[in-house]
Amino acid sequence: MTGALPRMFRALGLFLFASLLAAEPADWIWSARYVITMDDARRVIQNGAVAIRGDRIVGVGSKIEIDARFQPRQRLDRPDAILAPGLINTHTHAAMSLFRGIADDLKLQDWLNRFIFPAEAKNLSPEFVRWGTRLGALEMLLGGTTTFTDMYYFEDVVAEVAKEAGIRGVLGETIIGFPVADAKTPADSLRFTERYLTRFRNDPLVIPAVAPHAIYTTSDETLRAARALANKYGAPLIIHVSETKKENDDELAKRHRTPVQALESLGLFQGRTVAAHCVWVNGSDMAILARRGVGVAHCPSSNMKLASGVAPVLKMRALGINVGLGTDSSAGSNNDVNMFEEMDLAAKLQKVTTLDPQALPAGAVLEMATIGGARVLGLEREIGSLETGKRADIITVRLDRPNAVPLYDPVSQMVYALKADDVRDVMVNGKPVVRDGQILTLDEKLILSKAAEYGMKVKASLK
Amino acid sequence: MTGALPRMFRALGLFLFASLLAAEPADWIWSARYVITMDDARRVIQNGAVAIRGDRIVGVGSKIEIDARFQPRQRLDRPDAILAPGLINTHTHAAMSLFRGIADDLKLQDWLNRFIFPAEAKNLSPEFVRWGTRLGALEMLLGGTTTFTDMYYFEDVVAEVAKEAGIRGVLGETIIGFPVADAKTPADSLRFTERYLTRFRNDPLVIPAVAPHAIYTTSDETLRAARALANKYGAPLIIHVSETKKENDDELAKRHRTPVQALESLGLFQGRTVAAHCVWVNGSDMAILARRGVGVAHCPSSNMKLASGVAPVLKMRALGINVGLGTDSSAGSNNDVNMFEEMDLAAKLQKVTTLDPQALPAGAVLEMATIGGARVLGLEREIGSLETGKRADIITVRLDRPNAVPLYDPVSQMVYALKADDVRDVMVNGKPVVRDGQILTLDEKLILSKAAEYGMKVKASLK
Repeated sequence: MTGALPRMFRALGLFLFASLLAAEPADWIWSARYVITMDDARRVIQNGAVAIRGDRIVGVGSKIEIDARFQPRQRLDRPDAILAPGLINTHTHAAMSLFRGIADDLKLQDWLNRFIFPAEAKNLSPEFVRWGTRLGALEMLLGGTTTFTDMYYFEDVVAEVAKEAGIRGVLGETIIGFPVADAKTPADSLRFTERYLTRFRNDPLVIPAVAPHAIYTTSDETLRAARALANKYGAPLIIHVSETKKENDDELAKRHRTPVQALESLGLFQGRTVAAHCVWVNGSDMAILARRGVGVAHCPSSNMKLASGVAPVLKMRALGINVGLGTDSSAGSNNDVNMFEEMDLAAKLQKVTTLDPQALPAGAVLEMATIGGARVLGLEREIGSLETGKRADIITVRLDRPNAVPLYDPVSQMVYALKADDVRDVMVNGKPVVRDGQILTLDEKLILSKAAEYGMKVKASLK
Repeated sequence: MTGALPRMFRALGLFLFASLLAAEPADWIWSARYVITMDDARRVIQNGAVAIRGDRIVGVGSKIEIDARFQPRQRLDRPDAILAPGLINTHTHAAMSLFRGIADDLKLQDWLNRFIFPAEAKNLSPEFVRWGTRLGALEMLLGGTTTFTDMYYFEDVVAEVAKEAGIRGVLGETIIGFPVADAKTPADSLRFTERYLTRFRNDPLVIPAVAPHAIYTTSDETLRAARALANKYGAPLIIHVSETKKENDDELAKRHRTPVQALESLGLFQGRTVAAHCVWVNGSDMAILARRGVGVAHCPSSNMKLASGVAPVLKMRALGINVGLGTDSSAGSNNDVNMFEEMDLAAKLQKVTTLDPQALPAGAVLEMATIGGARVLGLEREIGSLETGKRADIITVRLDRPNAVPLYDPVSQMVYALKADDVRDVMVNGKPVVRDGQILTLDEKLILSKAAEYGMKVKASLK
């Protein structure tokens, strides 16, 4: 009882003080039982709120403070939810969702040569990529992913879909050493990429990127040209690196260098780079990645399912390398684009393979899925945490289902107990795109029926 | 066109033939786009159906056949779903859901001694177990689990809740070498267990079991008495075996025998046994398990999270040992009781640790979660597949969400793409218990609020 009166006066004082000032305008206030900020202090605010104006966060704090300070045009109160930064998928091939489960439990080479490459050769078109990316974007947004990093073909179409869906994308056109659906030669791809970089420059949602596939599929000359092109436009470069032991063994046999060493000698890391996988990197490789500030996209589900191996995530993090999480594609290497599963898997995989239950705790994993992922993409000033001045990429996650109770620690709950399906609302760049589990920007029914139709076509094409 | 007329005549003929016979009565027909039977031939029936009378399946086949043959009182048609046997969780401690996430990312001994044992000592009561098991049963049923294997305290209360919830349970009262909430001594537990075995004998849902905790927590004398008691009542015995390296090292130091060898010399495997974990078993151990027909509950999530190690699932299966899947508890060792996640993890963990992407394919994993789990429990004549004469334990799983399309292979989709939340309907022992994602047998709202209340009490008790 003794504390109740002073508390009441303090709240009243705060209210009066706020009323004396002209309340600041805001487009939205979103409030929730817990706000996980992922700011530098890793604040978790009980009964917290976020104020949004335009595409930016203008205030983060207790609900009482935010309500006193801002006059919102609209509000969303979720007293039984967590409010958190949107999740960041640092590596995927979204359109491949149309190949979901086309060929599981196969060796990588069989999977590529018997299924994926023929299926792509026979089916890829701008419309295939459009519907596949819509399906992927739908699944990602409903599951709380607000930024995805993509490498595929017809990437201009992927960018169009990202804008339509309202999802943020770091999107790279694949450059690869054999004829593909949208380019006969790597030179064609480079020309395509330059037009694409120009077209989407300064887009609020799309960060166009250059994506040479890997050292074993792209010539040295093309790799150098890709880097030069990326640097000319200040664009990030996305590439697969040291995914399999075979890739490492082949490069060692051919050049007496690991893939990382070979790429370093080509100057590929001299600029913003996102390296996917990095499973077979050794100490010298990691030193290069750290020195060059290369961001690593760790894809535990893909590395497990394709039996690629276990990336040395703890060592990379200890060396100060930024490591994010990626789903890889829904075709064979994973069968969904579910960042909650990647968080859970990342933690558990490091624990069991190091035999240390304290390895990669929940906080570290949530960091990889948010602000850490933003660092991997070079976007840490814009996204990845709930802080004033950042873009408003925000999710709410339900706490009113059986798997969410009781709750002892909101961060642990996010990583180990909550699921993609518990995501209730999603805002990207200040715009609500999912409300109460329903997508606002895409035609879900149509996408599902189109996806089923493409599935039948793909099936028929492989007979 | 040429095939259409004969097909029409065949269907008509079948219909007339069926009409000539008196149609057999059934309580239910459940139909779906795919029926995954898990019978010996592993039939997957497109546009299939199952007929149910009382607590048994009376027919499985194409929808046309089943509709022609049976006259059901009620029916459930799910043209956009998979119909499959209910999932079988071979190892859990359901009531511990009230400790969900109480202490993550800790060493097993810290977790037990600093959190679980004190929390249990201060909080365990029949009512705690009642509400905790209700929460666990709710989560399991909503996620498609129709049978769970439990080891905890106040197991008579667990059995009461199983009957109330309408979930099948192989439920063992823990017998352990120190004073616990419901027994001062192991002799007390044995007496309790005998009364409990008598009370639930011949129950349609509850299979009462005897559950000595482990070789390192229970005296040899008590282990022998537990086996004798189990055999007197024809009850299964549940025990943790070779979960951690420490357990193995300690037994080797003490007895110059592995836990399996020591248990064998005590005669513990001379009768129906479910051994949980079996992570550190060697060749000689596996030979013993195979010879004695011991069923193994593999718990990938728990083994990963607690960094216990990786069970040699492929070797055990190659030796003919029955291996099922278990979630272990929601407190620390896992943070949910989600069999879809265990399926996905089991496959991926074997692949990455053997570096073989073909290891433990989807079909093998679904087997472990259904008919394989039934064999582990000695219940393969009653449950685990959709076959005439078996108990009607059936689930439907939605195919109308983004993560379910396209669909190339229903079995692969079940294991790698579908989630616990996609479960739509559940029947146990002929009785619908979940309908359209809603529990029919329990008060969900009340359970969630009680769970939150217990969470606060537990938190306060640890201060």
